Amino acid sequence: MDSPFLEAIKGRRSSTAPVWFMRQAGRFLPEYRRLRAKEKSFFDLCRNVELAVEITALPVKLLKVDAAILFSDLLVPLLPLKSLKVEIKEGIGPIVESLVPLTESEKLLHPYNIEELGFVAEIVSGFKNAHPYTPLIGFCGAPFTLLSYILERGSSKHYHSTKRFMFEHPEAFRRLMELATELLVKYAKMQISAGVDAFQVFDSWVGALSPEDYERYVFEHTKKLVEEISKTKIPVIYFSTGTCGSLKVIKKLPCNAFSVDWRISLEDAINILGKHRVIQGNLDPSALFLPKEELKKRVEAILIHGRKADAHIFNLGHGVFPDTDPDKVRWVVEVVHSFRWD
Amino acid sequence: MDSPFLEAIKGRRSSTAPVWFMRQAGRFLPEYRRLRAKEKSFFDLCRNVELAVEITALPVKLLKVDAAILFSDLLVPLLPLKSLKVEIKEGIGPIVESLVPLTESEKLLHPYNIEELGFVAEIVSGFKNAHPYTPLIGFCGAPFTLLSYILERGSSKHYHSTKRFMFEHPEAFRRLMELATELLVKYAKMQISAGVDAFQVFDSWVGALSPEDYERYVFEHTKKLVEEISKTKIPVIYFSTGTCGSLKVIKKLPCNAFSVDWRISLEDAINILGKHRVIQGNLDPSALFLPKEELKKRVEAILIHGRKADAHIFNLGHGVFPDTDPDKVRWVVEVVHSFRWD
Repeated sequence: MDSPFLEAIKGRRSSTAPVWFMRQAGRFLPEYRRLRAKEKSFFDLCRNVELAVEITALPVKLLKVDAAILFSDLLVPLLPLKSLKVEIKEGIGPIVESLVPLTESEKLLHPYNIEELGFVAEIVSGFKNAHPYTPLIGFCGAPFTLLSYILERGSSKHYHSTKRFMFEHPEAFRRLMELATELLVKYAKMQISAGVDAFQVFDSWVGALSPEDYERYVFEHTKKLVEEISKTKIPVIYFSTGTCGSLKVIKKLPCNAFSVDWRISLEDAINILGKHRVIQGNLDPSALFLPKEELKKRVEAILIHGRKADAHIFNLGHGVFPDTDPDKVRWVVEVVHSFRWD
Repeated sequence: MDSPFLEAIKGRRSSTAPVWFMRQAGRFLPEYRRLRAKEKSFFDLCRNVELAVEITALPVKLLKVDAAILFSDLLVPLLPLKSLKVEIKEGIGPIVESLVPLTESEKLLHPYNIEELGFVAEIVSGFKNAHPYTPLIGFCGAPFTLLSYILERGSSKHYHSTKRFMFEHPEAFRRLMELATELLVKYAKMQISAGVDAFQVFDSWVGALSPEDYERYVFEHTKKLVEEISKTKIPVIYFSTGTCGSLKVIKKLPCNAFSVDWRISLEDAINILGKHRVIQGNLDPSALFLPKEELKKRVEAILIHGRKADAHIFNLGHGVFPDTDPDKVRWVVEVVHSFRWD
């Protein structure tokens, strides 16, 4: 039998729900901050195979979560591009500068030498060698989310620059989405060849779009990415936030599991996505600041609603915030693992 | 007969849909930028009655919209508070600094001398004297949105500080919401006494909450504000963004109209809110960058779907972006006004 996480993602229920957290190996863990300090630049940390393997393993050891997720960043697949200067500024976030006009799709996303990302494959195989029985989740951004970092020159509140570009240059945008998808397929397959057990596609910022625009400008590309990953027989989770109104489109993606955020009740999400699906989510990461008694009620309510889907993977609706108490996160894992439906 | 805007907000259809835009008197208009330059500080501009009346009237003259909205800012009702230092930094946004601990609700939101906001009443009466036949919309933030500026020290992407405070200090938060509601009721009534014809409550950032938290921490206070305004017989519009999953709660607010954003189709929104309601929205402000042919199709699709509600007020789902072409906005007004359903 597979681990509870892999059982669940394949649609088979175990006696307890599996649990992991987005950004579980992050700044909220003192052990992470200690390892983080060993490299000055964040991307150098991502490139340091030994440290990245150690960081990837931290939450399994410290929090007892059911799966590890590759320690890396959504922007890492952009690093081989000579057209871009990509950096992460402490306390500010990502800064992406393009050295070619954004409408020149080919120049922007070519040439792409995937071998420069060989360190990611080494982290995956390094982790699996050291922890063969721990499920490892690989990941990448979805094409829209990846491109948004280029078109916004970093992160954003409204994603207006991305949408403006999409509306004003639909052909260049379509080609960028196509090329981004190609690049992400290569990147995902590299992780899969190296040994990840499951894969999560992060469409963190696609909630800025209307359902109509999601369907018109984004769907086919994201579908292509998910399909290509699925061909490798690796189970795929599609994650998005703020997409309550687009779930009717999202449900058509050929993935194994959908990760939804707290902006929709898990019950409503399952009703829209269909019962015969695997659902992941959906605690608000800010809710980790509730008193334990309240928090326990919420976690259990999510587990009860999650039972309406074929299988449920407990998670947050987005990443753990850096100011979160690690003890609280560890305790939530215990609450999930000790909950019984009967 | 009332103007088409006032007819619509009362649930009566005219032969054409009325239209106005959030942030219609904003930086995208060169005529606004010319008047803006006459005062150094943004709040001094808000306090300058003559200029504010002129700015309020600009979009009616230049864009031919069906209603004016008071030129002011969501943060203006915070200005009389001695506990806060509030400023708007050009190119950065609002900065709010509290001189008392945030948990000391009474000290934070007291004393409140509404007379310091007398200039707002003067702008309203000044506008109505000059333009007696133009409907004027008054506005304020909803309590959650107003408090978020204090608890985040300005604007935010994730509203984590606000939610963290709400979860860690539920009693202080409840009291802050209560006091913010009292203060906003006074502020709204001042605008109504001065002559506004309708009122919009902006809950711009409440979409950060889960439906459960909206219901538990926010609903009763927002309801109280809407009820108090409704008692004056002035029609009320409740505006929110990213609240698709909470519309089942929002529909219980005793307001005349609901303004929804583009993250949900107008059809789905009307289905959830109920047909016998007035709906406002819901074009993505970024869609103003579509070529005219495409844009026209979208505007008309919104008008066709809007017909399924008792009445529909055409608007964006959020404010006009500063880089928008004023000619395009003016042209959308023409498209709306020339559209016929039959």
